[in-house]
Amino acid sequence: MTSPISRIAIATGGGDAPGLNAVIRAVVLSATRLGWECHGIRDGFNGLLAPGQCDGDPVLRLDASAVHGIGHLGGTILGSTSRGNPMRFPVEQPDGSVAEQDLSDELAALCRARGFDALVVVGGDGSMAIADCLRGKGLAVVGVPKTIDNDLDHTIQTFGFDTATGFATACIDRLHTTADSQHRVMVVEVMGRYAGWIALHAGLAAGAHAILLPEIPFDPGLVAAAIARRDAQGRRHAIVVVAEGAQPQGGRRMLVAAAAPGRAERLGGIGAWLEAELAARTGKECRSVVLGHLLRGGSPSACDRVIAARFGAAAVRVLARGEAGVMVTLAEHDIGTVPLAEVAGRTRRVPLDGDTVRTARELGICLGAEA
Amino acid sequence: MTSPISRIAIATGGGDAPGLNAVIRAVVLSATRLGWECHGIRDGFNGLLAPGQCDGDPVLRLDASAVHGIGHLGGTILGSTSRGNPMRFPVEQPDGSVAEQDLSDELAALCRARGFDALVVVGGDGSMAIADCLRGKGLAVVGVPKTIDNDLDHTIQTFGFDTATGFATACIDRLHTTADSQHRVMVVEVMGRYAGWIALHAGLAAGAHAILLPEIPFDPGLVAAAIARRDAQGRRHAIVVVAEGAQPQGGRRMLVAAAAPGRAERLGGIGAWLEAELAARTGKECRSVVLGHLLRGGSPSACDRVIAARFGAAAVRVLARGEAGVMVTLAEHDIGTVPLAEVAGRTRRVPLDGDTVRTARELGICLGAEA
Amino acid sequence: MTSPISRIAIATGGGDAPGLNAVIRAVVLSATRLGWECHGIRDGFNGLLAPGQCDGDPVLRLDASAVHGIGHLGGTILGSTSRGNPMRFPVEQPDGSVAEQDLSDELAALCRARGFDALVVVGGDGSMAIADCLRGKGLAVVGVPKTIDNDLDHTIQTFGFDTATGFATACIDRLHTTADSQHRVMVVEVMGRYAGWIALHAGLAAGAHAILLPEIPFDPGLVAAAIARRDAQGRRHAIVVVAEGAQPQGGRRMLVAAAAPGRAERLGGIGAWLEAELAARTGKECRSVVLGHLLRGGSPSACDRVIAARFGAAAVRVLARGEAGVMVTLAEHDIGTVPLAEVAGRTRRVPLDGDTVRTARELGICLGAEA
Amino acid sequence: MTSPISRIAIATGGGDAPGLNAVIRAVVLSATRLGWECHGIRDGFNGLLAPGQCDGDPVLRLDASAVHGIGHLGGTILGSTSRGNPMRFPVEQPDGSVAEQDLSDELAALCRARGFDALVVVGGDGSMAIADCLRGKGLAVVGVPKTIDNDLDHTIQTFGFDTATGFATACIDRLHTTADSQHRVMVVEVMGRYAGWIALHAGLAAGAHAILLPEIPFDPGLVAAAIARRDAQGRRHAIVVVAEGAQPQGGRRMLVAAAAPGRAERLGGIGAWLEAELAARTGKECRSVVLGHLLRGGSPSACDRVIAARFGAAAVRVLARGEAGVMVTLAEHDIGTVPLAEVAGRTRRVPLDGDTVRTARELGICLGAEA
Repeated sequence: MTSPISRIAIATGGGDAPGLNAVIRAVVLSATRLGWECHGIRDGFNGLLAPGQCDGDPVLRLDASAVHGIGHLGGTILGSTSRGNPMRFPVEQPDGSVAEQDLSDELAALCRARGFDALVVVGGDGSMAIADCLRGKGLAVVGVPKTIDNDLDHTIQTFGFDTATGFATACIDRLHTTADSQHRVMVVEVMGRYAGWIALHAGLAAGAHAILLPEIPFDPGLVAAAIARRDAQGRRHAIVVVAEGAQPQGGRRMLVAAAAPGRAERLGGIGAWLEAELAARTGKECRSVVLGHLLRGGSPSACDRVIAARFGAAAVRVLARGEAGVMVTLAEHDIGTVPLAEVAGRTRRVPLDGDTVRTARELGICLGAEA
Repeated sequence: MTSPISRIAIATGGGDAPGLNAVIRAVVLSATRLGWECHGIRDGFNGLLAPGQCDGDPVLRLDASAVHGIGHLGGTILGSTSRGNPMRFPVEQPDGSVAEQDLSDELAALCRARGFDALVVVGGDGSMAIADCLRGKGLAVVGVPKTIDNDLDHTIQTFGFDTATGFATACIDRLHTTADSQHRVMVVEVMGRYAGWIALHAGLAAGAHAILLPEIPFDPGLVAAAIARRDAQGRRHAIVVVAEGAQPQGGRRMLVAAAAPGRAERLGGIGAWLEAELAARTGKECRSVVLGHLLRGGSPSACDRVIAARFGAAAVRVLARGEAGVMVTLAEHDIGTVPLAEVAGRTRRVPLDGDTVRTARELGICLGAEA
Repeated sequence: MTSPISRIAIATGGGDAPGLNAVIRAVVLSATRLGWECHGIRDGFNGLLAPGQCDGDPVLRLDASAVHGIGHLGGTILGSTSRGNPMRFPVEQPDGSVAEQDLSDELAALCRARGFDALVVVGGDGSMAIADCLRGKGLAVVGVPKTIDNDLDHTIQTFGFDTATGFATACIDRLHTTADSQHRVMVVEVMGRYAGWIALHAGLAAGAHAILLPEIPFDPGLVAAAIARRDAQGRRHAIVVVAEGAQPQGGRRMLVAAAAPGRAERLGGIGAWLEAELAARTGKECRSVVLGHLLRGGSPSACDRVIAARFGAAAVRVLARGEAGVMVTLAEHDIGTVPLAEVAGRTRRVPLDGDTVRTARELGICLGAEA
Repeated sequence: MTSPISRIAIATGGGDAPGLNAVIRAVVLSATRLGWECHGIRDGFNGLLAPGQCDGDPVLRLDASAVHGIGHLGGTILGSTSRGNPMRFPVEQPDGSVAEQDLSDELAALCRARGFDALVVVGGDGSMAIADCLRGKGLAVVGVPKTIDNDLDHTIQTFGFDTATGFATACIDRLHTTADSQHRVMVVEVMGRYAGWIALHAGLAAGAHAILLPEIPFDPGLVAAAIARRDAQGRRHAIVVVAEGAQPQGGRRMLVAAAAPGRAERLGGIGAWLEAELAARTGKECRSVVLGHLLRGGSPSACDRVIAARFGAAAVRVLARGEAGVMVTLAEHDIGTVPLAEVAGRTRRVPLDGDTVRTARELGICLGAEA
């Protein structure tokens, strides 16, 4: 199929996620085979909007050599992913202060000036909103979903989640013998502000005794009772996995979910709260471990690299067939697409009547509330 | 729901696979919560049919303590998985020779004599045939699919595959720099007699330059040409991933797939053949590595542990609701079942028009035949 | 060589450490080959002193079968390692209160009553003091050094340290890309109350930009200046590795080292303090991660398993040649011994004029104080 | 200390080894701090002797940016390590044939022409001989020892060995359950042509039942007898670790050690021979796995990165104090040096009266010959 495209750009936004480089590599390799020229915008959209902030070239020419051997590396060769929301871009004012401005028109103009026929935007909820905004300004844009938390709607999985879950599981595996040898309760806080996918999967994989999700407001008394029951059976340690956004019933921490990203980690999150709460209720030594920062980095798992490669190739395929304004998605057997406009603001939460939650209950794992 | 079941047994058959212990643990924990008594039959069905061959108790009582902390361990606490096909059981004859006999009636009788109300059989194609045979003799049987090759029909994934693919990927990752520093072609033979899932996923994840599947008879000349093309571009190493059952066009190795399990590994399989063939055709130093045996063991990945737990809990759930004669399966969002009779002899091959194969082509990976 | 020994017991004390099972296995296998009978005392010395607190047998018979396949497992098959100091044993008084009593005479008597000709005690500083006390009461005792922190004197390395350092390094590796993508300073707190071996080795291995050790009281201003220097060069993230027991100059945290074990972790340790301090001084986003609990568990590294096996075999060898009252040690080329009495209260700190510290300085890593 | 050096070059020779990049990084960072300018010679010495063979610049300018984030990567940023022995350099003759010539004078001249005041040569036995030759021609040269096999004399350890041993151990760990479930004997061939360090350490760490080293010509009958003994005890699998250069008594494979590097792997090495031999002698199913190629790549372990960093910094330190013509070495507590002339042709073999071999015997591991 002929396509009018000859020059595209890739931008990555939002937090770090294992598999970003594998997406970039797949986009570049498959676009190059179609004869397209690829470019990477550095530091989110900063490379175009504030080129002076980048060290070196603000836009990188990406050919097969540039993406050679990067598929297994964590991070992204395009630098920081967390800056440069063009819709709220920090601009220095005449008086020296900094104010946020909507630079999306400027961004669209800069893309045209650079001769980019299309844009591949890799990111989460927020990046898809930006992508949709640029689409509205006439750019051919295709989105690639990225969220370690696995909470983007319309896709059954995104890259990064498997790696994060695997590492969280490896960490909890290590805590078992230590908790056991000290007769302790270990509270392990993992990522998941709005959805508890990582907590549920890592907790189930690593044999946690309680798993607390944002989807199920929990009763600390039930968790303490589950621990006491184990104790009475001579099992003197327990592992409690709690998602960052889980909340006790009654709402004393309802502010957590509303807090700025990372705020819970910084101020003492739900893990620290639960450590104190369970210590008081059970009389046992409790310790909390916060895995948050450890779960974003690292070499992507094979599973995540395959998803990333499929998404990258699919983004190019979508553009090649003249489609745009969509995000690529993963379904059971195939890759699909969904209009960008339908993605924003939708969170895919753990279904409470789903099989995995049911399995956790049937294995006797405390979920913090009666079924 | 009340259920007439009060005593069940678990048997594991076929080769080793990461996640077997996680299945056993899930069956035992969820059955115990229903008040059932669980037993494990050791060494496939040997524990019942030839108890003298087992070291110690031929049938193990399995309670929560017995399965404590086993979820992350490779292997199976029920011992050897590869013996004791009751339909072709080796029995010593009066004259001292050994002949295979159908002991399935005896096995069914032994299960009844032990008071087993139901049987959970974890295994592949062959084990499901045995399970179906026992079902025909009036036993309540539920199957749990197990195949590292991921080639069982009716289920989108089985436990063990993700771990095997992950380790194969880790091995290929390691070979890149070594092949590069020596300017070599590395041929990596992985498991997959009838279906190339591991080769395709590990090859895609690890950046292989050619991937050869049982589903696509390959032209060695095309593979050599792909390597020569890389060479001409100054990339002087190449990684070729080949599934155990891949065959060159023209059929010179058609006998491989028909060989006894493991025969290719033993006699010098397709990897060694290809090493010689590519060396002759490209003039480059080629080396082959056979990963087969390394892919069956090891601690299961988080993903495989979750699948295993879901399958184990589902098997008990199926029995509890009075269903039997089925194998549990994994679909996109949920667990399902399929009659045992429909499982046997069906292989789930890699779909050549599927998205993953398409991605491999679009990334420029040589698949050994023109699209 | 003939030896009068026919029956020995093994006890493990202190915190969890990867390699304990490998030591136990080596002791049992080599003692069994000499015809000795081996027993394991459970839960530190609780198995003898308070058998009612153990679930099941308080003393385990250990033969080759009992230690089969345990060498690569974390934890210890002898249960909790942290209870049962016989010199300060918690005993319930007639009035219901609990008071610590010296039960070392009782313990020695119990060992004799059980017919133990010798005792192998695996543990740290404190356990060696107990071992020395029992030696004083006429028991043949040999010690095996155990400290993840690597701070026991007289031995160049102990098992557990390499595994802990390896996992800390893996964690810091993961933090690099995440810190980079967010332009953050990551403060990583690792174990090491009195000696900074883990911080130094993991920091050096993982490319940390500052490493703070208990051996060098640090100036936070110098650390902040080092971060600012990186920033000025366009490197906008930094990794600071800090040992649990590191202290700022001027002593505001002098109480840390004196605190009860783990207290720093619980109350907010040096990592959290430094996060706040560096944020204030550099104006950059800082985050701290505490790895403490994650470093004690897990499957021991090959290196640690070899050390553990050598120590276990050496302990038996020492007893077989009629020596006792010593701890086995590792020197450059061989295993040695040192009298138990010389071990207690000696900490092996990082030598500030040693080659590894010098290397860190020469690589430009900030050590928190002028050389 | 002032030093007349202002410009140095680094070359890496011999096979791939995990830690090469960490050495390069340490050399560059510490030399840069002294104000020196660093260069890397690509593809062994090809970058100078045959610049046309390199893709791009034959000599790379190496500053802090160039070595940023490479410490944990396998391979070497200087490209192929296996080409370019200047003493036997392949040169095309007028008649089109290729003949080896001694280009060491030319190489020394090229180094001078480039203004290199000193050379850091990272490599094994052969590279040290080249280094010594260049020293003889008046260049300031310092060597850094590199051998995965750990068989270089004068140094107690080199980088790469720990990573290789760790991965071999991980592979053997995986083979245990698979061998067990199939009642098989697994023969695992590892690197080690002249010295059995990897076989001994990985075998000991992973619980092998027999370990065969180049240092101990073995009797296959003893190995078979050890397997039969296990079988009689109901342990129906066995793991035999054999170094590439191990030989049966009587010498039927004496040619192996003399063969060209890698020849054993290619032709069917000692592993395949032993598989057949043990199958015939024990009547059990035997399988061999060759790990050779898998052991050279991969991210270096923390231990290897620390050694590599120390060696790299030491090489610069040695040059800075005006010393040259030496190789840096690792002793128990410190870094030392040894004249290059004393390194060549000396192999550090496993001492048969050393503690590690003794431990293996005491644990009941068959070493293939009576003690």
